Amino acid sequence: MFFASDNGLGASDKVMKAIVDANAGPTLGYGNDEATKRVERQISDLFEREVGVYMVATGTAANGLALSTLTPPWGIVLCHEESHVIEDECCGPEFFTGGAKLVGIAGAGAKITPDGLNGALAKLGRRVPHHAPVHALSLTQSTELGQLYSIDEVKALTAIAKANNLNVHMDGARFANAVAALGCKPADITWKAGVDVLCFGSTKGGALACEAIIYFDPAKGTEMVRRRMRGGHLLSKHRFLAAQMEAFLGDGHWLDLAGHANAMATRLAKGLAAVPGVRFPYSVQSNGLFPILPKPIEAALKAEGAVFYPWLDKSLPAAFTIGPNDVMVRLVTSFATTADDVDRFVDIATRAAGLIAAE
Amino acid sequence: MFFASDNGLGASDKVMKAIVDANAGPTLGYGNDEATKRVERQISDLFEREVGVYMVATGTAANGLALSTLTPPWGIVLCHEESHVIEDECCGPEFFTGGAKLVGIAGAGAKITPDGLNGALAKLGRRVPHHAPVHALSLTQSTELGQLYSIDEVKALTAIAKANNLNVHMDGARFANAVAALGCKPADITWKAGVDVLCFGSTKGGALACEAIIYFDPAKGTEMVRRRMRGGHLLSKHRFLAAQMEAFLGDGHWLDLAGHANAMATRLAKGLAAVPGVRFPYSVQSNGLFPILPKPIEAALKAEGAVFYPWLDKSLPAAFTIGPNDVMVRLVTSFATTADDVDRFVDIATRAAGLIAAE
Amino acid sequence: MFFASDNGLGASDKVMKAIVDANAGPTLGYGNDEATKRVERQISDLFEREVGVYMVATGTAANGLALSTLTPPWGIVLCHEESHVIEDECCGPEFFTGGAKLVGIAGAGAKITPDGLNGALAKLGRRVPHHAPVHALSLTQSTELGQLYSIDEVKALTAIAKANNLNVHMDGARFANAVAALGCKPADITWKAGVDVLCFGSTKGGALACEAIIYFDPAKGTEMVRRRMRGGHLLSKHRFLAAQMEAFLGDGHWLDLAGHANAMATRLAKGLAAVPGVRFPYSVQSNGLFPILPKPIEAALKAEGAVFYPWLDKSLPAAFTIGPNDVMVRLVTSFATTADDVDRFVDIATRAAGLIAAE
Amino acid sequence: MFFASDNGLGASDKVMKAIVDANAGPTLGYGNDEATKRVERQISDLFEREVGVYMVATGTAANGLALSTLTPPWGIVLCHEESHVIEDECCGPEFFTGGAKLVGIAGAGAKITPDGLNGALAKLGRRVPHHAPVHALSLTQSTELGQLYSIDEVKALTAIAKANNLNVHMDGARFANAVAALGCKPADITWKAGVDVLCFGSTKGGALACEAIIYFDPAKGTEMVRRRMRGGHLLSKHRFLAAQMEAFLGDGHWLDLAGHANAMATRLAKGLAAVPGVRFPYSVQSNGLFPILPKPIEAALKAEGAVFYPWLDKSLPAAFTIGPNDVMVRLVTSFATTADDVDRFVDIATRAAGLIAAE
Repeated sequence: MFFASDNGLGASDKVMKAIVDANAGPTLGYGNDEATKRVERQISDLFEREVGVYMVATGTAANGLALSTLTPPWGIVLCHEESHVIEDECCGPEFFTGGAKLVGIAGAGAKITPDGLNGALAKLGRRVPHHAPVHALSLTQSTELGQLYSIDEVKALTAIAKANNLNVHMDGARFANAVAALGCKPADITWKAGVDVLCFGSTKGGALACEAIIYFDPAKGTEMVRRRMRGGHLLSKHRFLAAQMEAFLGDGHWLDLAGHANAMATRLAKGLAAVPGVRFPYSVQSNGLFPILPKPIEAALKAEGAVFYPWLDKSLPAAFTIGPNDVMVRLVTSFATTADDVDRFVDIATRAAGLIAAE
Repeated sequence: MFFASDNGLGASDKVMKAIVDANAGPTLGYGNDEATKRVERQISDLFEREVGVYMVATGTAANGLALSTLTPPWGIVLCHEESHVIEDECCGPEFFTGGAKLVGIAGAGAKITPDGLNGALAKLGRRVPHHAPVHALSLTQSTELGQLYSIDEVKALTAIAKANNLNVHMDGARFANAVAALGCKPADITWKAGVDVLCFGSTKGGALACEAIIYFDPAKGTEMVRRRMRGGHLLSKHRFLAAQMEAFLGDGHWLDLAGHANAMATRLAKGLAAVPGVRFPYSVQSNGLFPILPKPIEAALKAEGAVFYPWLDKSLPAAFTIGPNDVMVRLVTSFATTADDVDRFVDIATRAAGLIAAE
Repeated sequence: MFFASDNGLGASDKVMKAIVDANAGPTLGYGNDEATKRVERQISDLFEREVGVYMVATGTAANGLALSTLTPPWGIVLCHEESHVIEDECCGPEFFTGGAKLVGIAGAGAKITPDGLNGALAKLGRRVPHHAPVHALSLTQSTELGQLYSIDEVKALTAIAKANNLNVHMDGARFANAVAALGCKPADITWKAGVDVLCFGSTKGGALACEAIIYFDPAKGTEMVRRRMRGGHLLSKHRFLAAQMEAFLGDGHWLDLAGHANAMATRLAKGLAAVPGVRFPYSVQSNGLFPILPKPIEAALKAEGAVFYPWLDKSLPAAFTIGPNDVMVRLVTSFATTADDVDRFVDIATRAAGLIAAE
Repeated sequence: MFFASDNGLGASDKVMKAIVDANAGPTLGYGNDEATKRVERQISDLFEREVGVYMVATGTAANGLALSTLTPPWGIVLCHEESHVIEDECCGPEFFTGGAKLVGIAGAGAKITPDGLNGALAKLGRRVPHHAPVHALSLTQSTELGQLYSIDEVKALTAIAKANNLNVHMDGARFANAVAALGCKPADITWKAGVDVLCFGSTKGGALACEAIIYFDPAKGTEMVRRRMRGGHLLSKHRFLAAQMEAFLGDGHWLDLAGHANAMATRLAKGLAAVPGVRFPYSVQSNGLFPILPKPIEAALKAEGAVFYPWLDKSLPAAFTIGPNDVMVRLVTSFATTADDVDRFVDIATRAAGLIAAE
């Protein structure tokens, strides 16, 4: 019953097989191999236009490198106040950008709203040299709280961004879960909706360690060749990154994996919703659940070996107070989550709730 | 006949098997797994003392991160003028250190000599605020030209370093080849010889992508936890780094692989030495050869499919002039080089030399 | 009627005379002159302990340089959300620290409260590598809204800081106004109250361009020698910085100047308080006033040549709503403000208020 | 007899008077004053085209800020190996550029030659991601050894630079001395000769602390508004920078001052050339002399109170060996050097030489 994170599992069998298969014979290093070229073609096809692709091993690298091309060192990047880039990368974006400032915007479900964005711009819209100018907007799809931006929601935000000359970055560590849930084409939710650069993750989705930085205008990404190298993010045996991505994207494997993770989340949500005392501040839209549990239920689950973490939600809707006997937790399902694990988790929670009622 | 680089091959079968085996079940991410703990133990045992270990996916990351803990942003790192850190990392060390300066020292075979080091220190030994102070010495073992520092040579350099309060870094991308060739214990050529931090590579030696930054005084490496994270170099599925290193180091696998690469280099050197017109400015000590070839020989080899690159040696000994019909090349053998490839390469060169003579 | 800023005036006559007097004969550059030594002695005496002193020409330089010695590049500096370091230095602290993060805390009057500080620490107190750790607290005395921290208030905040291993920085661009108003000794409100580093401004107070970074533990400031140089902040003709500071501090000149500015602010506040429609969200404690004016009064003042700016107060107490016909403004008095200017300003406001009432 | 540096003197009387005169009445800060506008006009007129002007207080700031707009953080700046930017700014350019690399070129008299430049470009002209690309050339006029680049020499170097897509920076800390000596128009030796950005110093020439960064294409300098601010180099009482520069440039004052310094250098050179045992490796072309003195002469001069420093010349022409009883020294004349001081210095040296001969 592992719900701690979707990076707690290894790679899908298909991805792992691709890695093994890639181990034959010599190739040129640093991306000068055939597999890398195939992935570039594959991603361009998937997104229905010629794109610039730069693969790296981690999401923090992808985000930091991408942002460094969207803002000067003295610029501001607007993001949600609970986003990974501002909260969970230990000043990585500041490092890669050379000192830019991330400014967080509040919003339920870790989603930025047009009002939130306009409000931040109004506060920061001054124009003397003292004030760092806003250069970029970073959106996370799906969000840190498992919520989705619809195509129209993305468009509404990027329209504001464009009107203010901001570049738009999308942190897509769980982009696969979003696309699977929205049922849209990748292009619809990215460049057609105003996104300039996507960090498209495969690691959480079922690869070993591979994230693709995708420039929808390839000309804007050319300096990434140097940025990636000096950041130590150009792998010499680059074919193994390419092998992962090729297998992940091929034959819709990425959507199958994400679809499974999402389905397990839905199943878990449905099960938990019936447990007395369990409350959901947010609907479950992708592969992350953030229920509020009575602490005895949390304890019972942990006692039975379930692995998951508490969560701090800065923008929790006011209707959902967390009492001293409650705890908000994060449950993440993955491509490898089994229905058995889900059902067992629900069962333990249900029984624990019964014991509470009996007291 | 692939002699372009030792990163042109994939992973050894044993390492690849370990990766596949590591793909079972969930683990905590970011190094909080059992395999990582085992590797830390393994490396401490190998080096005969408790060390601090931080694994990353590339050598450029390892070097940059390590150097950033050995110099302040305004310090000087002395290194050979042909070393990887100053020549081949696209300002990576400058990026990670926040702006430190690398100053290159000349020396045949890409080796720093005590005279060279003392000379550099004499020039840089001023003490007004204008002058960046020297904080670290970086050695490469084996060097970019395949040469080795003996234990005594390392000691002589680190003695000068210590007398000048410098920290000592060793770039060990090919440390395995050096240890296999020297026949010494890893401790003898590192901390017992005055090295503070070793970047111990396994990628070139037979892994997929794994380098270990090793602090012989663990207390000096503690900030690496944050530096690695913000640099985007902490892999979420860290167990796969650990799996590579565990297999690489286990049962002397690393020395077997390096020993093979070295033996192939020796075989190649022996064969080429007998080819008329081929000259070796340097003895072949590990897995890199840098012969000067008549251009018709180079052409014949390439025509038959051999893959290798020309090389620019800034410190070429004066006795070895390169005429207009000559070219200096780099030939690198690896764990996967076959005797057949070596012999075929020599054979082509021999025949080409015969044709030249016949003209 | 210049109330736009206290940096809109030149230098006091005494300071200017000192600059002229310093222009005689050759001296060694870069702080190796006698005047610099005298200032170091003078500041140590003033603060009743041996301190480390580093003079630079601007407050942004002083703050950025000081903070860079109080946090690593991946650390968090807590400050008020309206403080100069986070709002008005165009990512200067991020630049000097190499990418540290400033996190703003709300609080009326641009003052941090113990509750605010504890709350921020509770949110940021996580300890995995993903989370940037908090390393420093920055206080501004007097604050951006002209408010003062009492000795006890500083102590309460630094006690929390120390309990959390934070270094404490004080932005004292208007430290003179604070000391003059509090009537305390400089030591009492700084190191005796837990402050580690003070950026002590003289520019706003009556000098031309001179700020002293003061380390109460001199050992902690030694790397400033290099940091100041590489930042381009070590003046070659350093004697002119020293001359300013020596004159500013000598014979209590700094307190006379600040006392005058404060008195003018009090006079202005008293006058405006009697004007119908003018409201003061904050008591006037030093040399800055932030009244809410009816717009016709603002217009009348500007029409008569008064110079001042509107102000955005993020933490405005809820009792003070700003209607569509109101504007919050900043009025700053200086060492050169005259009673005539103050009285004329009040007079214009009073007449304008009368006109409003008459309508 | 102060020959230690041209920054050991204060300001010229005219410049100091301008500072005092600027101390009247309030102005807007941060360069929004009339004097700043006048200086911008003045410099555009002087250089015969519309330029972008950014004033700062130090040469290290000017150079670092300027270079940061001419290279990305992963680029190489070529400069002379004895230039101020690489030797005397404590990694300032690395700091401002965010980690770019300065690569020094050898050459007698601290001058870069076309051969030297071409040689460096040949070595660095590789084009894989590993290799930092060359982005800028930095020239110093007059050089660290007091030598001048003629107009044709500048053109020859910038032609190579332009052919390689390099931006060209000129460190003009002693630009005044160069122009006075060359007798050319400022435009001829800068933009008309291919220079993109000039750091035009007035501090050494007779001001207190003021250097102008001049963009000959103003569009290329626009981000300097933010860079200067975040670097802490935008003075609040900016009018005092403007006052210095206005007085310095007005009525040819800068050329009068530089002409005097140059004349004193010529007088000193003529006197010393007649002293037995004194040798000049370089002709004296501006206000710096670098003679080789017998040590007894050096001792006699110091005993009589002369102030000057020894000098290390990395590119000393082979004909000028420095024996154990010799010392190479730097003598710098300034706007305030008197003929009496020069003559007395020569007299002491002459007498000391006589004593040596008598022994």
